[in-house]
Amino acid sequence: MRKSLVALVALSLASSALAAPPPPTLEAQADHALAEDRLAWDFVEGITTEVGPRQAGTEADRRGREWAVAWLKRHGFAKVADEPFEMQTWVPGDLHRAEVLSPFAQHLVVAPLGGSASTGPDGITAEVVKFETVDNLRAAPAGSLAGKIAYISHAMTPTQDGSQYGFAGPARWVGAGIAASKGALATVIKSVGTDWHRNPHTGGTAFPEGVAPIPAGALSLPDAANLERMFARAGDRPVTMKLTLTPRDLGTTTGGNVVGEITGRDPSLPPVLLACHLDSWWLGTGAFDDGAGCAIAAAAALNANMSGQPLRTIRVLFAGAEETGLWGSKAYAAAHAGEPIAVALESDFGADRIWRFDSNFREDNPDLHARIARAVARFGVSNGTEVATGGADINIARDQKTAIIDLQQDGTRYFDLHHTPDDTLDKIDPAQLRQNVAVWTQVAGILANEPGPIKPKE
Amino acid sequence: MRKSLVALVALSLASSALAAPPPPTLEAQADHALAEDRLAWDFVEGITTEVGPRQAGTEADRRGREWAVAWLKRHGFAKVADEPFEMQTWVPGDLHRAEVLSPFAQHLVVAPLGGSASTGPDGITAEVVKFETVDNLRAAPAGSLAGKIAYISHAMTPTQDGSQYGFAGPARWVGAGIAASKGALATVIKSVGTDWHRNPHTGGTAFPEGVAPIPAGALSLPDAANLERMFARAGDRPVTMKLTLTPRDLGTTTGGNVVGEITGRDPSLPPVLLACHLDSWWLGTGAFDDGAGCAIAAAAALNANMSGQPLRTIRVLFAGAEETGLWGSKAYAAAHAGEPIAVALESDFGADRIWRFDSNFREDNPDLHARIARAVARFGVSNGTEVATGGADINIARDQKTAIIDLQQDGTRYFDLHHTPDDTLDKIDPAQLRQNVAVWTQVAGILANEPGPIKPKE
Repeated sequence: MRKSLVALVALSLASSALAAPPPPTLEAQADHALAEDRLAWDFVEGITTEVGPRQAGTEADRRGREWAVAWLKRHGFAKVADEPFEMQTWVPGDLHRAEVLSPFAQHLVVAPLGGSASTGPDGITAEVVKFETVDNLRAAPAGSLAGKIAYISHAMTPTQDGSQYGFAGPARWVGAGIAASKGALATVIKSVGTDWHRNPHTGGTAFPEGVAPIPAGALSLPDAANLERMFARAGDRPVTMKLTLTPRDLGTTTGGNVVGEITGRDPSLPPVLLACHLDSWWLGTGAFDDGAGCAIAAAAALNANMSGQPLRTIRVLFAGAEETGLWGSKAYAAAHAGEPIAVALESDFGADRIWRFDSNFREDNPDLHARIARAVARFGVSNGTEVATGGADINIARDQKTAIIDLQQDGTRYFDLHHTPDDTLDKIDPAQLRQNVAVWTQVAGILANEPGPIKPKE
Repeated sequence: MRKSLVALVALSLASSALAAPPPPTLEAQADHALAEDRLAWDFVEGITTEVGPRQAGTEADRRGREWAVAWLKRHGFAKVADEPFEMQTWVPGDLHRAEVLSPFAQHLVVAPLGGSASTGPDGITAEVVKFETVDNLRAAPAGSLAGKIAYISHAMTPTQDGSQYGFAGPARWVGAGIAASKGALATVIKSVGTDWHRNPHTGGTAFPEGVAPIPAGALSLPDAANLERMFARAGDRPVTMKLTLTPRDLGTTTGGNVVGEITGRDPSLPPVLLACHLDSWWLGTGAFDDGAGCAIAAAAALNANMSGQPLRTIRVLFAGAEETGLWGSKAYAAAHAGEPIAVALESDFGADRIWRFDSNFREDNPDLHARIARAVARFGVSNGTEVATGGADINIARDQKTAIIDLQQDGTRYFDLHHTPDDTLDKIDPAQLRQNVAVWTQVAGILANEPGPIKPKE
């Protein structure tokens, strides 16, 4: 017994002296990521510290892309590039003030919504008309808001799956456009968010064809609540506000998608696409939204490669200008339309733990779906039955009707931070970030070593 | 048995038909406050909504006093007055920017400290020198900071008793003065606070006699952490910052202390003084600091009176200009020096639950101390052995060496909110506010009905 053990050790030592040690298994590499991955943290710490906010189409956005290109090259990615595209660029400007003048005088914290028009530096002063919901605003008679500022409220509570965004979001997405179509001078909304800090939540707002944009701002939740209390205490007295927002349209500027690859053993096979977006709103440093997503995608690609060169190429896409209109996602889909991809995943919902795996090939390729589900179960990820549809940055996958995987993250605190000044590095829990990297490593590694089609029927 | 019960009820009904029903006992009134007091909430909701920030010595401060006078009169207080005093007034101005220029370019969230000088609207640009602690700054050679901006860090964690303020506070209290004495152009500190939001914590900073004030700002904790990471990533490269802070000294203006009384049955007895401060820093709406304190004091005085007119007068003191130099407390102590008070209490540590009762007459008047301790035990308040010293607004009690009671509040989240934009109504937990009112009602009622001296030996 003893002798044979010694012989075995000797044999093992001899063979490791003769050849390089074998790479860790994919499972071991994913477990290692869970315990001590530092790649993702290095990426998100680096870009939030050395670049910070990356408002799409601006100089800071360009610096962010340059930074990401350097990071990918430094970590050994191939074919690293900043692929340019043309975009329409909106910037927030410097003056963001909302001052209630009567019946009570007090400043409220406000930020412009993406796409907002300017009030000019002198601001506008008008009576505020309150709407509890977008539906109430929709019901207001045509022309009834002439000369008024429309205030739009809503109710939103945190949910693990982020589903309340669908209910509360329209206050931001379409509220200003509806108010403008009824003659409003401007709109302020209760931020679409769930935190109680002096954080305005910005985000894009859209104006219908033929409706000229008006100034549109978001109040932080404490400020919106204060304004609503003012209405309650005002009785019949009008509530008047001076609103000053000075965003500007810069016209056409150049944005870019940053890409890089882990080259597969058979580069002729369609690649695995791991996506995120690199731009952020100007208020925060783009940690949760979406520096973390790019960090997870890049770390997973590197980790998968560390368990042996994958069969398929793994491509990372750090999309540009997602926040201001999916300019990067659309440009990538157009530029690469003729290059089939095997499967796409996107990380753009913060950095909290992944709790569910969904695919769009559960029925077409049940063996692969089940294999992935079993492989990620040890990280606390359940096998979902939803049909994955992917996020904003993987238009190309939907265009190509190819395989898509959604690795659902816990969104309970996502809308505390979404599009606010508070989207900063300290909000990222290193342990949960590593769980994301572990799951992505496992999934990317399985996909990149799958010889057959991921979604056979398409 | 049944007959005698009927007779008893009949007797009780008859006596209540003959005379007004007796007032509730003090205990019943305090229990009622715990369950459903609305007076304190009405006060703090009202002043934060109808006035908002009340920077000492400004027009908003004047409106705050006017509002408080009206509230006290409306609720039946006697001798309501706004007692004026002269003060030196500092205002924050409009431009508050900190922009790191190199080696990484990014804006940081900053607010001026009270007493800060102005950089002028064009700002100043200089290299930043980092100090981990005030002691490290103290150790810097004379003149070594010439032409530099000193950054001062510290470590602070939340504590129930707020004791960490004593360790971390000097970074704000004296850091700028020390830096100025060594030639620094300006100072930025890590906010003296415990939250991780983009909240700068302002507060007064003092410059030594003969040292000219320099511009002094506080970075939010996420921004301070970001700046520290920049230092770590900068290596040998200097970190340069453009700092723009435009506060102004307005010279001498008029502030005021708002007072009011529940007149006792024997107004010749020294009164019970319930204090708080009415002013707030400009950033928040002065809910936790210290609208809640005035709400608690006023509600307790009214509640105590509802259990029968007290023997002694209960006076409330809403001190003015506490934040910018205790102007109101000093003015009150000087103006009323000749009027003995029996005992003083102050509420100025937020609105979370009271957990300990301390007095400075535990040895001189053990029976009364024990009686109060027993009476508040049912609200979860323990009997403390510290010697109460009171807060900033009751200088008069220390001057008179009279009785003082400290009703210690849970300060675990106090320094998340202290002197920040986040000091808003939504941070007040109505149930904990009511517990404060209940305890204060009980204590004020006992004290106001005590015929003998509260602190006999003085």
